[in-house]
Amino acid sequence: MIDAGEVARRAGLGGRTNTIMQTCFFAISGVLPREAALAKIRGAIEKSYAVKGREVVRKNFEAVDLTLSSLARVPVPEAVTSRRYRLPLVGDHAPPFVREVTARMMAGRGDELPVSAFPVDGTYPSGTARWEKRGISRVVPVWEPDVCIQCGNCSLVCPHAVIRAKFYPDKRLEGAPAPWKSAPIDARGFPEIRYSLQVYVDDCTGCALCVEVCPARDKQDSSRRAINMAAKDPVVAAERENIQFFESLPWNDRSRVDFSTVRGAQFLEPLFEFSGACAGCGETPYLKLASQLFGDRMVTANATGCSSIYGGNLPTTPWAKNAAGRGPAWSNSLFEDNAEFGLGLRLAADAHLEQARGLALELQDLIGRELVAEILGAKQRLESELRAQRARVDELKKRLTARAGPRPLALLSVADHLVRRSVWIVGGDGWAYDIGAGGLDHVLASGRDVNVLVLDTEVYSNTGGQASKATPLAAVAKFSAGGKSTGKKDLALQAISYGDVYVARVAFGANPQQTLLALREAEAYPGPSLVIAYSHCIAHGINMQHGLSQQSLAVSSGYWPLLRYNPAARASGENPFSLDSGAPRTRFREYAYNELRYRMLQQASPTHAEELMKRAEEAVTRRWATYAEMAGRGG
Amino acid sequence: MIDAGEVARRAGLGGRTNTIMQTCFFAISGVLPREAALAKIRGAIEKSYAVKGREVVRKNFEAVDLTLSSLARVPVPEAVTSRRYRLPLVGDHAPPFVREVTARMMAGRGDELPVSAFPVDGTYPSGTARWEKRGISRVVPVWEPDVCIQCGNCSLVCPHAVIRAKFYPDKRLEGAPAPWKSAPIDARGFPEIRYSLQVYVDDCTGCALCVEVCPARDKQDSSRRAINMAAKDPVVAAERENIQFFESLPWNDRSRVDFSTVRGAQFLEPLFEFSGACAGCGETPYLKLASQLFGDRMVTANATGCSSIYGGNLPTTPWAKNAAGRGPAWSNSLFEDNAEFGLGLRLAADAHLEQARGLALELQDLIGRELVAEILGAKQRLESELRAQRARVDELKKRLTARAGPRPLALLSVADHLVRRSVWIVGGDGWAYDIGAGGLDHVLASGRDVNVLVLDTEVYSNTGGQASKATPLAAVAKFSAGGKSTGKKDLALQAISYGDVYVARVAFGANPQQTLLALREAEAYPGPSLVIAYSHCIAHGINMQHGLSQQSLAVSSGYWPLLRYNPAARASGENPFSLDSGAPRTRFREYAYNELRYRMLQQASPTHAEELMKRAEEAVTRRWATYAEMAGRGG
Repeated sequence: MIDAGEVARRAGLGGRTNTIMQTCFFAISGVLPREAALAKIRGAIEKSYAVKGREVVRKNFEAVDLTLSSLARVPVPEAVTSRRYRLPLVGDHAPPFVREVTARMMAGRGDELPVSAFPVDGTYPSGTARWEKRGISRVVPVWEPDVCIQCGNCSLVCPHAVIRAKFYPDKRLEGAPAPWKSAPIDARGFPEIRYSLQVYVDDCTGCALCVEVCPARDKQDSSRRAINMAAKDPVVAAERENIQFFESLPWNDRSRVDFSTVRGAQFLEPLFEFSGACAGCGETPYLKLASQLFGDRMVTANATGCSSIYGGNLPTTPWAKNAAGRGPAWSNSLFEDNAEFGLGLRLAADAHLEQARGLALELQDLIGRELVAEILGAKQRLESELRAQRARVDELKKRLTARAGPRPLALLSVADHLVRRSVWIVGGDGWAYDIGAGGLDHVLASGRDVNVLVLDTEVYSNTGGQASKATPLAAVAKFSAGGKSTGKKDLALQAISYGDVYVARVAFGANPQQTLLALREAEAYPGPSLVIAYSHCIAHGINMQHGLSQQSLAVSSGYWPLLRYNPAARASGENPFSLDSGAPRTRFREYAYNELRYRMLQQASPTHAEELMKRAEEAVTRRWATYAEMAGRGG
Repeated sequence: MIDAGEVARRAGLGGRTNTIMQTCFFAISGVLPREAALAKIRGAIEKSYAVKGREVVRKNFEAVDLTLSSLARVPVPEAVTSRRYRLPLVGDHAPPFVREVTARMMAGRGDELPVSAFPVDGTYPSGTARWEKRGISRVVPVWEPDVCIQCGNCSLVCPHAVIRAKFYPDKRLEGAPAPWKSAPIDARGFPEIRYSLQVYVDDCTGCALCVEVCPARDKQDSSRRAINMAAKDPVVAAERENIQFFESLPWNDRSRVDFSTVRGAQFLEPLFEFSGACAGCGETPYLKLASQLFGDRMVTANATGCSSIYGGNLPTTPWAKNAAGRGPAWSNSLFEDNAEFGLGLRLAADAHLEQARGLALELQDLIGRELVAEILGAKQRLESELRAQRARVDELKKRLTARAGPRPLALLSVADHLVRRSVWIVGGDGWAYDIGAGGLDHVLASGRDVNVLVLDTEVYSNTGGQASKATPLAAVAKFSAGGKSTGKKDLALQAISYGDVYVARVAFGANPQQTLLALREAEAYPGPSLVIAYSHCIAHGINMQHGLSQQSLAVSSGYWPLLRYNPAARASGENPFSLDSGAPRTRFREYAYNELRYRMLQQASPTHAEELMKRAEEAVTRRWATYAEMAGRGG
């Protein structure tokens, strides 16, 4: 037996246990003579990691030594004496499909399932990731109500939707369990309202981004923030009890939540949760935020890549649904046709809407002219308007259900399309910049109301880090092992050249408020929208805990200028282009050399690295000048 | 019998004889009762052309009437009395392949050819279009040496390379045939040099662009230009004699011709000639000019479309070779992979060059160190430098041929790659803006030295006029029958966003000098280059004779701003972006409404047409402002 996580931490390898497990295998399996095996492991480490620097090699060597001294023999007793049995993977309160299908797949017994157990039309129930309590982290965040300023940042950055907030009348506290924590809500005029932040400890991956982003400090002890990592074991029982109570509190009324601030948006239910993405993933916070804002009427076309793996990886799916049973519909077609696939979803929704409108007009005497007029004339931009429309459509369906005949039935089948749909086309840079670029360009040119979200890790992350056209100058990636010698494609400028495409470049770690604004503007814009989202990634060769500070440096160095191009602004004579971040105030290399993808070249070939770095710095300066000029234009 | 061309002209249908031939068929075939057939033809005309306006319908009706009155019966005699035989399609002086293969295919007897007659490796000899004297026009240009100012414009605009110029010592006149025409060359200090312009009358399509572009007028009779259309019959015999003499004169020395002016470039041999493109084609002058400038070291990847049809349409090919046997190598892969195909040609050439350089160094003691050093260090930008390099490579090959052994043989097989190759990637807007857009983007991002020429007719011309992303706002095309409601994709801006791509937008009919400059800069730039070339087209619904004036209006209205973006300018601190045409001085509608593609909508739906036209005019104004701002930037 070995505590591999602990050994990795002591050797300075973070959560990486591959060297340790390999050493264990050869140390006890007897496949090779022990000493010969260890020599080969050391040789392999030298070969694999030399390019990443001496320090990485040294840490792995140390891990080998620590492994050997930490391996403990456990004698196997003659007979089983334990009276404990393994708990069922999911409880009795899980839905039948989860109990009968999902849980058996989770248990590795999927091959026992009969074909008849599977959905006949190929669709899978969503919201099943919540039944897969992976419990992979030994440390979890612990909330301190007295220090917290209720800003919502921890909840926004959490890649796994593990941190959630609700407010509720203080009389609800009566039923709370003993360890329950709460604070008065930080808003004037609501003395009877309490605020609670809940950590889903069994779903936490321990990335600590929530702690990194927390701006609040204990005045007595500035090392203590409003949220801090602590050992899971002492708190897990209490938090499980708290979670149950937290789930009994209703989500706050969407039509009364302030969508326009990070603070407000934290009260929206995430409909993307507990995915299998890496700890500290820089992509998932964008998806989670979109699911909070638009999830209950969202349809998503997802390109192949990380997001299609953690987004639709059986047995469970992180895309979820709310108490009313509404949530994002999600599908993945091919790597190369995702934009077109999403456009198809839009065209289908538009056709259904047209059908519904036509039938409603045709049947207005039967349904009631007033209701039909209200439904067809409804503005559906604000959440309160959407809520009103849902109520009208419910009433319409009620009236239709009371009527017989093929026409009312036909309208019933498409009535839900009368609530505005939000079509999202999602993928990584490998898709958007390379393999699906032609299709994306075509869809952006279509004038149709689709929202494209590019999770830009600047590399093909899922397949192991191949260069894409999003890979920046001077960075090392597969297929650009000597440092990329051409610049990063400026997808934003290309899209802006259309003039009628909403375009934003965002980085939630640098400015979550701008991210929120851009996502909302993109969704509201009635034509094509493109949001290019900086996504820090393990492929960058960083400690993922520093993902947010790297995002900040990317922006403050001018490498990743935050921008929004809103064609709707033109109507009021304004310049559609706004630059949302300031002029570069740190050097590009201060950002870049925190990342192994840049540092590797510096180590392997310092002169060449310096040449590329100079060119990269010039490119940053030049691009900033272009953007600044665009921002200075008239309306 | 009927003179359909003459009837079409009288009815105002230009060269369109379809209505006339159809009327003939039904008038004499007896398939339907004559009056019933004519009624049906009139109905079909009404149905087909109503959308193009009453005037078009009226002209076609008139053509029907004129046809009926022009049909002449020819009695077939009892016996053949003629002593004349059909001349052989090609003369005895044609190369064996042309006589044995091409000519038989031209005669419609290709199915008699054995498989063994065809090239074993799938390559076809080029320069065979010159053997296919189609003689399709009854009018041809006639040159007036006394009026001519030798500007070269007629020769530049000729889509079929039918007008050519040479200069030569006056003593060559001794062997000239009687009808030979010449003038003293219009250049000081060369009193003994004569200038001749030769029209290849049997290859002329009668488009009259040469006359339209001619700036010179007879002072006595201003309707007489330096080149004028006249009946072919009276001049054909004399001109055939002249052509023979013209071909006996050598082409002028490329290293002594001024490549930088239209005037100078006319003396370069076109290596793209006599294609099957439409009379007055707006695409082929660009290809011809490129073939004049770079043809003897040009390799072309051609996308599917008009240019692949007239460029490689068996039995003959218009791509030709010079007296030394050098000319463009040409191929067509698929519609969707042409940019990638061209990049492959570049990579292959680079690999061969590397091989040749390596072998030359390895064998330098054998070959001679001085020669190797000269070859490897050669600058090859100016024509004189290229000529010197060719001489060196010839010497290298001579020395290698004298040596035995596998290494000299290996170098011999790649030695020609030591002369700089010019890789061209050619296609229409259907390819570049749509179907091949993803690949084109990838190739432009590659940093490799390729030259992309987009022959932009703003519509899928070859397949009958479907809308592409190049189709402008407000124009009617298939799939945008109600007028295109989205704007034309700005491919230039998209490419400029890379920063290291040479980009030009040209229109030879508006500014041939700028076209020439852009092609030369693009070719000289050692990275990717993109030239977007306005190509007037029958699909625009214009009288093709007015192609050039439409090009001028496109530019003067600000719809098609001429521009060049040369990243090389940055090295000297200059702004890479230059705007080569002035601020709009005519309205967009003055240009657009000369074309049926815009007028159709005005006729079918005037209010909608006006809405779209207003939006199109706004878009022109907005884009001009963007460009003007870019041109005003610092270095």
